Amino acid sequence: MSGFAAATAVTPSGDGMWEAAIAPGWDIAGNANGGYLMAMTARAATLAADRSDPVAVTAHFVAPGTPGPVTVQTQVLKQGRRFSTVEATLAAERPLARLLGTFGDLGDGAGHLERLGSEPPSLPPPDDCLRVEPTDTFPPPFVGRVDLRLHPDTGAFGVPGSAHVSGWLRLRDGEPVDTLSLLLAADALPPAVFFTDFPISWVPTVELTVHVRHRPRPGWLRCAFTTRFVTGGFLEEDGEIWDESGRLVAQSRQLALVPRG
Amino acid sequence: MSGFAAATAVTPSGDGMWEAAIAPGWDIAGNANGGYLMAMTARAATLAADRSDPVAVTAHFVAPGTPGPVTVQTQVLKQGRRFSTVEATLAAERPLARLLGTFGDLGDGAGHLERLGSEPPSLPPPDDCLRVEPTDTFPPPFVGRVDLRLHPDTGAFGVPGSAHVSGWLRLRDGEPVDTLSLLLAADALPPAVFFTDFPISWVPTVELTVHVRHRPRPGWLRCAFTTRFVTGGFLEEDGEIWDESGRLVAQSRQLALVPRG
Repeated sequence: MSGFAAATAVTPSGDGMWEAAIAPGWDIAGNANGGYLMAMTARAATLAADRSDPVAVTAHFVAPGTPGPVTVQTQVLKQGRRFSTVEATLAAERPLARLLGTFGDLGDGAGHLERLGSEPPSLPPPDDCLRVEPTDTFPPPFVGRVDLRLHPDTGAFGVPGSAHVSGWLRLRDGEPVDTLSLLLAADALPPAVFFTDFPISWVPTVELTVHVRHRPRPGWLRCAFTTRFVTGGFLEEDGEIWDESGRLVAQSRQLALVPRG
Repeated sequence: MSGFAAATAVTPSGDGMWEAAIAPGWDIAGNANGGYLMAMTARAATLAADRSDPVAVTAHFVAPGTPGPVTVQTQVLKQGRRFSTVEATLAAERPLARLLGTFGDLGDGAGHLERLGSEPPSLPPPDDCLRVEPTDTFPPPFVGRVDLRLHPDTGAFGVPGSAHVSGWLRLRDGEPVDTLSLLLAADALPPAVFFTDFPISWVPTVELTVHVRHRPRPGWLRCAFTTRFVTGGFLEEDGEIWDESGRLVAQSRQLALVPRG
């Protein structure tokens, strides 16, 4: 198995329980990336429901995850004709994340009405973008697990600008993207609000929801994230993920905490 | 108790179970409104966690609800210092909706950093907007339970236009809005996609997530909903809810099914 598939692998141990391990290197400042944890948990839920794809998945993060063994307890709440509803808890010694999702088989997406309100995000070719390489601090080790190329106009941290970030993303070593890796992609870029003069350097995720529309075709993912509202002690970050063929494959929204000013 | 509070009341029956009833008249074509069911379920979850407010709540709808007795089974997954994570299942003879949420005490929202990426939706005064009155079919009985005034430029159904709808909303008979009623507001306007020439007249909700930022101040809610992407057999509807004092009090996003064309 390649990097992402191996690092999110789950093994059934009966009664809806799955064994897994948080792999080293998928962390930001020591804590495993939320999208990575969500993808691992959703993999168990997808298998538990005997479905191919996450369709609408929400994770609430209750404690940070560090490398080592974990379990995923799944419960299929409803097995419908077209969709399954599943809940799952990722736990180490204590619960780390709780997931609730609808799963299905997205097929080829043919035969549906289509109307798109915007074009894919505009990005120069990947080789003309900013390649992000991991360090022990920032950029975090996590970016070494993916291949991330930010838009060349991406601003520096802490300078005036709009809370927007975009870039290309793919898995390393030619591993193809699938619908589970879209959950990873939904949380893989640096937070958009970092690219502003707003004094925020830490935005712990409360909740992340991803809606998957299509199975991505092979190649790069084109990703864009925007924060519009910092208020009430929270901010949202809205994401669009498009595949290389120009299809919207997922939307995401997360609610994150804003430290008190 | 007034209309909304009474229609979403829950009574504890021990072990995290709550008794309730789907009230008549909160339906659309016979099925109870999703936001209404979500508010009732979240009321039980809020009480179970001994918190004041929903903060980030997701509901997956698995079967339609009709008037009559229901139960809400709640489970507090984590009681943290600042937040509680709760899951809840609304059921009649079978499960109707599953909820996962983070609950807390929003307080007065003071002391936080603030940055807003847009103004509240522009709306003429409520008395200059289109008052929506219920019928047995469309507008549905549900709108009789709220006071809804659509923007006077709101288009007719089935004509070319952008998938956007906005309006004022308040509860009937002077009942004040609270954070639970924001969950109702998140699903209370006619779907934005109806106000286009797109041949869609039925958009069953798969999943609805609401992020609550502030307790609304007394008065009208200013609501705006937009659909940008119809693709893959689904559409999203994104909502903003502002209070009469001009504060963003909630954001919402739902994923709905699009019937095959």
